[in-house]
Amino acid sequence: MKVVFIGAGNVATHLSLAIRQAGFTIAQIYSRNEKSVVPLADKLQTNWTTDTNNIVKDADIYIFSLKDDALESIITQIPANPGCWIHTAGSIPMDIFDGHVSRYGVLYPLQTFSKNRAIDFTQIPCFIEANSSSDEELIYNIASCISTDVRILPSEKRKYLHLAAVFACNFTNYMYTLAEKILEDHNIPGETIIPLIDETAAKIHSLTPAQAQTGPAIRYDQHVIRKHLDLLKNPDMKDIYQIISKSIHKAYIHE
Amino acid sequence: MKVVFIGAGNVATHLSLAIRQAGFTIAQIYSRNEKSVVPLADKLQTNWTTDTNNIVKDADIYIFSLKDDALESIITQIPANPGCWIHTAGSIPMDIFDGHVSRYGVLYPLQTFSKNRAIDFTQIPCFIEANSSSDEELIYNIASCISTDVRILPSEKRKYLHLAAVFACNFTNYMYTLAEKILEDHNIPGETIIPLIDETAAKIHSLTPAQAQTGPAIRYDQHVIRKHLDLLKNPDMKDIYQIISKSIHKAYIHE
Repeated sequence: MKVVFIGAGNVATHLSLAIRQAGFTIAQIYSRNEKSVVPLADKLQTNWTTDTNNIVKDADIYIFSLKDDALESIITQIPANPGCWIHTAGSIPMDIFDGHVSRYGVLYPLQTFSKNRAIDFTQIPCFIEANSSSDEELIYNIASCISTDVRILPSEKRKYLHLAAVFACNFTNYMYTLAEKILEDHNIPGETIIPLIDETAAKIHSLTPAQAQTGPAIRYDQHVIRKHLDLLKNPDMKDIYQIISKSIHKAYIHE
Repeated sequence: MKVVFIGAGNVATHLSLAIRQAGFTIAQIYSRNEKSVVPLADKLQTNWTTDTNNIVKDADIYIFSLKDDALESIITQIPANPGCWIHTAGSIPMDIFDGHVSRYGVLYPLQTFSKNRAIDFTQIPCFIEANSSSDEELIYNIASCISTDVRILPSEKRKYLHLAAVFACNFTNYMYTLAEKILEDHNIPGETIIPLIDETAAKIHSLTPAQAQTGPAIRYDQHVIRKHLDLLKNPDMKDIYQIISKSIHKAYIHE
């Protein structure tokens, strides 16, 4: 089966490598940016283009892994063809393809991808859908070649999955960033906090996050909270500290 | 060496078990709460009391693991003795013992403890200090029996470590809680998000949190952010989403 990738960013990189490893032929990579498409095409030993008019027309599958705001305009720039068009975005409904091509779907891998970090795709939950049962089966089968956890989920639900991922990953990582900033501002090595970060994540395997919650905010320990707010000089960090502490406290009052 | 524990909460439980396993004698456990002291004394097969006047006077070490707001009042309730008094609190300065006993210090294990979750104490960074070099050595040696990562850190710096831990652990765990709430409100199993949580934490071993940051907030992708804010009905979650997204964006504008 012949696959074309539209996009050469973090998701496209990891997904195309996993798909190639599963035995598919990556026929071509498109990106408007030569700097990102060339290294990926090199890794995959395949062709590349930066011109939407040069995208091959006879592939079975077209996988769009682009920034959300680029997706719609790129779709309309590519002439329709008989292949199945698939995007990988959490927050974009499947029907973004509607009216442009007749076969389409979604393959959303729920994971955080960074270019220079290897990842085991087999462990990534993949959420798929399609506009026909035959293409649902096709995408299900492709996803099952790269991941052991494939589920069918409609766009209406997928958007909540993406929102939850923003909290669990992007916002969590920002909490790490702020913690490291506090340490480094006081000449304590940032990596000091890594065992705590690891255990905080590991706990969730055996406790619910609600059971795992610890710290001064649960009881709204005014004494500690006031001292912490005094230590924080950055107004954003003060605001974040205050609003999250209040919200934790509210959640635990009702327990 | 004879050790008395003052407190029977999460930290006291894990620390006393680790200390006993390292070959020390736990002579007694005190807690004002019989319900928590009895099960811990059972586990340690040792004596317990709920009366500060009955605390044994001839131990070498007294370890205070109490809630921050209880610590000061309990210290003054216990008659002074020649042992070395140690507390385990991140945000309380060592000199809380000053004027009451002549030998004192701190042993702060930087970790999140939940009672029903086993933990490998050897991997926990322990931060210690004392009011004399001989007791600094004593506490250093005790800590080295239970952990492979012991560091000397003064109270002035330890308070920032504790503040960083609130972000890296307590606030991070609350991000997990909110993510799980979003999923469960839409009938998606909460554990769906666990591989993402694991990878978000694992990334920090090879990338700095600043390098690991992904998601719509970096570019302040208005389109996605507006859609997410529309999906969030809870005003606290809306506020948290907005303030963290803005702060992430500000941090990345300057890159």
